[in-house]
Amino acid sequence: MSTRRDFIKKVSTGGALAAVGALSMPSFAFAAKSAKSANLNISLQEGIAIGKSLDEKLDYMEKLGVTGLELGGGNLAKRVDEIKKALSNRKIKVSAICAGFGGWLLADDPAEKQKCIDSTREILAAAGELGSVGMILVPAFNSQHSYPHTQETRDRLVADLKELGAYAHEHKTSIILEPLNRGEAFYLRQVADAASICRDADSPGVFCMGDFWHMTREETSDRGAFISAGKYLKHVHIASRKRRIMPGEDGEADNYIDGFKGLKELGYEGYISFECGTKGNKEETLPAAVKLIREQWKKA
Amino acid sequence: MSTRRDFIKKVSTGGALAAVGALSMPSFAFAAKSAKSANLNISLQEGIAIGKSLDEKLDYMEKLGVTGLELGGGNLAKRVDEIKKALSNRKIKVSAICAGFGGWLLADDPAEKQKCIDSTREILAAAGELGSVGMILVPAFNSQHSYPHTQETRDRLVADLKELGAYAHEHKTSIILEPLNRGEAFYLRQVADAASICRDADSPGVFCMGDFWHMTREETSDRGAFISAGKYLKHVHIASRKRRIMPGEDGEADNYIDGFKGLKELGYEGYISFECGTKGNKEETLPAAVKLIREQWKKA
Repeated sequence: MSTRRDFIKKVSTGGALAAVGALSMPSFAFAAKSAKSANLNISLQEGIAIGKSLDEKLDYMEKLGVTGLELGGGNLAKRVDEIKKALSNRKIKVSAICAGFGGWLLADDPAEKQKCIDSTREILAAAGELGSVGMILVPAFNSQHSYPHTQETRDRLVADLKELGAYAHEHKTSIILEPLNRGEAFYLRQVADAASICRDADSPGVFCMGDFWHMTREETSDRGAFISAGKYLKHVHIASRKRRIMPGEDGEADNYIDGFKGLKELGYEGYISFECGTKGNKEETLPAAVKLIREQWKKA
Repeated sequence: MSTRRDFIKKVSTGGALAAVGALSMPSFAFAAKSAKSANLNISLQEGIAIGKSLDEKLDYMEKLGVTGLELGGGNLAKRVDEIKKALSNRKIKVSAICAGFGGWLLADDPAEKQKCIDSTREILAAAGELGSVGMILVPAFNSQHSYPHTQETRDRLVADLKELGAYAHEHKTSIILEPLNRGEAFYLRQVADAASICRDADSPGVFCMGDFWHMTREETSDRGAFISAGKYLKHVHIASRKRRIMPGEDGEADNYIDGFKGLKELGYEGYISFECGTKGNKEETLPAAVKLIREQWKKA
């Protein structure tokens, strides 16, 4: 089973600078709209787009009609100028920032928790400069020793998220809680639970997301999960549903229509971002996946 | 805040026997239907219906057009004949059996867990004889010392539910997992999580429910929660949304339309059962609550 680390580490950092120009982009926001008005905005993680340099990747994405670029959080602060320049005079915007922080928020070791808070703040500041929707945060992976799963821990998490959320909001971006499947993070597995944490945090900078890959294992209804996310839904990840490769590579299993119906009901106008590998030739499987998603979105 | 125990302990056990006659009732089941065909079936817990004897209560319920009677599980086995006789020649059926078991399933003390299993089996057998939808089970209340909230505990729970579910199914009834709010049972708080446990148990005798009272605190979307419950939804509890009294007694807060929409989308034909107290005169607040629910069901 591929993990996030696999995708992120493929990110190229040698992008040539295409053009010089400051990028002024408002923080991403969407208002609930009718199902008919919901737009499909496809995003790719930097490591998934085809090309040797960031510029080549962006050229490729533009040809595909992809409008969002998801970046890793590691080293992001040092890449702000490079990325701003590469995106100037393009329609592509930064979607979310995926991970890249140190430590973990639920750590029972104060040093690990502080590491998480410090690195998260640094990434949030860079995310804000880049006009990113927000920074994806997993409270704790299974391998990360944490406080027990109790109400007290939940209260502590909510208090920490309030602080990080306020910081994110100051920087015109957000924290996006991501539920993972039980094999990776038992603590937060369902979208409705993430949404419930957002409600408790009651912060203009705390949101959640759904990842079809994880949802396949944890949700009984994609549509129900997204409806429960409601106004807290800020981002969506997609992959094939059996092997976390390109949507479509797992055949009939790769049906997202029920979830897309939920997104349309919400008037969701955020990004649907690829986080996946491929078992085939990416030059074929990636465009095919984009096509599949567009077709299923229409059917939803 | 009223708790389940308060409602259940009010149950009258002195019901006169109205008529003699065996009751042959199939296990409750509903198939998904279109929203238009979903019926509203209202149920009252025995302690809520007005009357000195079970027969008086049933007479009262019939006048209100209530079709379900929810019974406490304590002492149920000894009441089977009494209840069968009281219900013969009536349109009212037994909806769910609420609690009444000993011990708790997540107990780290094997004696408490065994107590739960033994008493649950006894109640399930009686529930089956009475044609009940199922028996409501809470895996652990906050005050009940349990295994930690980990994947291992979840696996243990699922294994135990498989066994109890098979037993329930043999007896033509079911186990119904009830999520409660965090103040009562942090372990299982959301309907989507209960549904996920049902999916893992993969048993014809394991289902879940939603209780509007608990959902008010824990769910971000009543409709999303019910859609996630989907085919696993077997029962619904209702109460006012601020003080757990009669629907309507908390004024504008007592809006169930969004949840009812979800139930209609599922083609839900189970019961919506009152579990609540009242601050007013029950002879007024109870009929008013039934009327309110009927009006909101129509609007949904």
